[in-house]
Amino acid sequence: MTLIQEKVKQAAGLIDEFGVDCWITFTRESQICGDPTLVFLAPGPVTWHSAFIVSAGGRTRAIVGLYDQKAVEETGAYDKVVGYVTGIKEPLLECLKELDPRTIAVNYSEGSEICDGLTHGMYLTLHRFLAEIGMADRLVPAERIVSALRERKSAAEIGWMRQAVRVTEEIYDLAGRFIAPGRTEIEIAAFILAEVDRRGLETAWTRAACPAVFTGPDTAQAHYAPTARVVEPGHILNMDFGVKIEGYCSDMQRTFYIPAPGETAAPDDVMTGFRTIVRAVEESKRAMRPGVEGRTVDAVARSIITGAGYAEFPHGLGHQVGRYAHDGTALLGPAWEKYAQKPFRRLEEGMVFTIEPRLTVPGRGVVTIEEMVVVTGDGAEWLGRPQKDLVLAG
Amino acid sequence: MTLIQEKVKQAAGLIDEFGVDCWITFTRESQICGDPTLVFLAPGPVTWHSAFIVSAGGRTRAIVGLYDQKAVEETGAYDKVVGYVTGIKEPLLECLKELDPRTIAVNYSEGSEICDGLTHGMYLTLHRFLAEIGMADRLVPAERIVSALRERKSAAEIGWMRQAVRVTEEIYDLAGRFIAPGRTEIEIAAFILAEVDRRGLETAWTRAACPAVFTGPDTAQAHYAPTARVVEPGHILNMDFGVKIEGYCSDMQRTFYIPAPGETAAPDDVMTGFRTIVRAVEESKRAMRPGVEGRTVDAVARSIITGAGYAEFPHGLGHQVGRYAHDGTALLGPAWEKYAQKPFRRLEEGMVFTIEPRLTVPGRGVVTIEEMVVVTGDGAEWLGRPQKDLVLAG
Repeated sequence: MTLIQEKVKQAAGLIDEFGVDCWITFTRESQICGDPTLVFLAPGPVTWHSAFIVSAGGRTRAIVGLYDQKAVEETGAYDKVVGYVTGIKEPLLECLKELDPRTIAVNYSEGSEICDGLTHGMYLTLHRFLAEIGMADRLVPAERIVSALRERKSAAEIGWMRQAVRVTEEIYDLAGRFIAPGRTEIEIAAFILAEVDRRGLETAWTRAACPAVFTGPDTAQAHYAPTARVVEPGHILNMDFGVKIEGYCSDMQRTFYIPAPGETAAPDDVMTGFRTIVRAVEESKRAMRPGVEGRTVDAVARSIITGAGYAEFPHGLGHQVGRYAHDGTALLGPAWEKYAQKPFRRLEEGMVFTIEPRLTVPGRGVVTIEEMVVVTGDGAEWLGRPQKDLVLAG
Repeated sequence: MTLIQEKVKQAAGLIDEFGVDCWITFTRESQICGDPTLVFLAPGPVTWHSAFIVSAGGRTRAIVGLYDQKAVEETGAYDKVVGYVTGIKEPLLECLKELDPRTIAVNYSEGSEICDGLTHGMYLTLHRFLAEIGMADRLVPAERIVSALRERKSAAEIGWMRQAVRVTEEIYDLAGRFIAPGRTEIEIAAFILAEVDRRGLETAWTRAACPAVFTGPDTAQAHYAPTARVVEPGHILNMDFGVKIEGYCSDMQRTFYIPAPGETAAPDDVMTGFRTIVRAVEESKRAMRPGVEGRTVDAVARSIITGAGYAEFPHGLGHQVGRYAHDGTALLGPAWEKYAQKPFRRLEEGMVFTIEPRLTVPGRGVVTIEEMVVVTGDGAEWLGRPQKDLVLAG
């Protein structure tokens, strides 16, 4: 069964589970501003207004522009695929009159960007169409369906992510031997990208900042492209990096220390920071199991960091990973405005999370480890080999 | 001046021209479902709720998550960049209370996907925020601002597109010598992609269908990946392909004929079709000048094709090109539902369009040429060398 067949089938189960009659992904020109859900529903981009419909009783329909019809038909995931020339309204309304759903879930959400693929203009269009057949008041948000579709990962999806993690670790090992005083962040990033290219892979997010490389005490901290800053002895260097395998991402951070002349181990201030992060990661993982709210896990790491006398990290402890480095709705995060209801969502089996606390060692740099774990029936499991030892580089 | 500085400045002029007080691009997690306008406003992706504000009197502001602040500041395009940690509401409302705009344009549009980057969830969030300070009824669509920002191309933008066209022509010339009976569509596509990679370039749209290669009478016609179908003598082969230079696309189609044994020229049925397409392209270009509605130009080509006894092509004559192969709002198209008001928009100087009529020669394949032109002060100008001769291949 292909991924699209698997996900369309999963969706049919989810609409039953969440008591929705019909779920429509309504999008157009998907290379410009497409719904992120589309990748589970169609074999490639769509051009004109397109509707992918999963309805009660497992009835599935797709209505797309004529030139997109053949490729969508060939997925074998839909009972019926209509290709139109002049406009979608007529075939769409005809289909909905036939299905006559009491509720129509569509992809919008204030609190979860991954479930918010319907643009406002497309919402207005759909609302206007539905008003013509008296169904406009049946629209409801599809957040729970879209979330579950992405979050409850199959064995195949988890397998691809394990592979992505393995490659990332392999390249980090090579990078650890490449880092040396005098090299720049840009050179280190180029070394890593060459390893990615040599394997014919893509980075997990935009190449300009994947890997992100931060050396020393004086950096942008995160989300910033590598600079001409030079690696110096006595400094901490940290990196954030991932690759995609079959469209599924890894997202991992590692921390390195560059010994000063004569040093054979990292100094106490660095080791204390490093051990605090390792402990925060381990204890967070231990707190994870189905049913636990994400904010509870975040609080474990946050209190270890602040309890050790460091400043609180200005971000959530961990996000889900999937087809994007940031994926899913449930979040290991604090109850901050920008996270909306995400930290209150409960963990479920099959969710893949990062755990990525950070702290600053004054005058040295930032210690941060980002591991990936999958939630199991009664806990959580590493997707790779967690960093337990500080890497001495150069 | 960088592209971002140039575009933010251009936007300040446009809000005056269209009588709007303030324009906000409001987006989040832009690698997942970001606003296509963001590329003109920020140096890379943004993670959390972000607002890019251009206001009357040329006052410019950006409000972004803490980790995105430094990169946005360094654009030098904004008077003030705020980086927040827990949520955007407070800094955003503070900024809007200071600016106190009578109208606030945001990026949604039913009729133009390129102007429809605001998701419905983000619209609801912004509306809810604005309601708290009594400004919710000031929201208006920014379609005209966003359209003009993309459509009125600078000399630099047009220069990049000319380069993209030149490379595309160069690769088409090589492909014309590679095509031969017995080769498959997949092999021809691989040859072209190797030429793209050798030049260190990206394709203009997703590699799976760029180039698109269609050989013989029996294909999906358009928007379909190359197949294992074999090139045969007596058939027409057509391709659709483009590259990006500095983020700006080319999008061009070319038609080839594979002579049957003993043939030194294409047969009459093929030549009649080919000449009809060449004439349709030329006459369409001749009809283009500022002030003309796109549908008028479409009608020129459409009537030449049908007047010559061929079926009407099931798509618009031409779209704009820019950072996407399909860009801008104004369209050379018929007044069909799916095109909304686009064909009624008038051409303006600096718009770059494709002209791409098509027709089928029964038993042979599809003849289609796609040229790119820029609208000038009093007409239109080719961006490359238009195809005037049918390429005999193999």
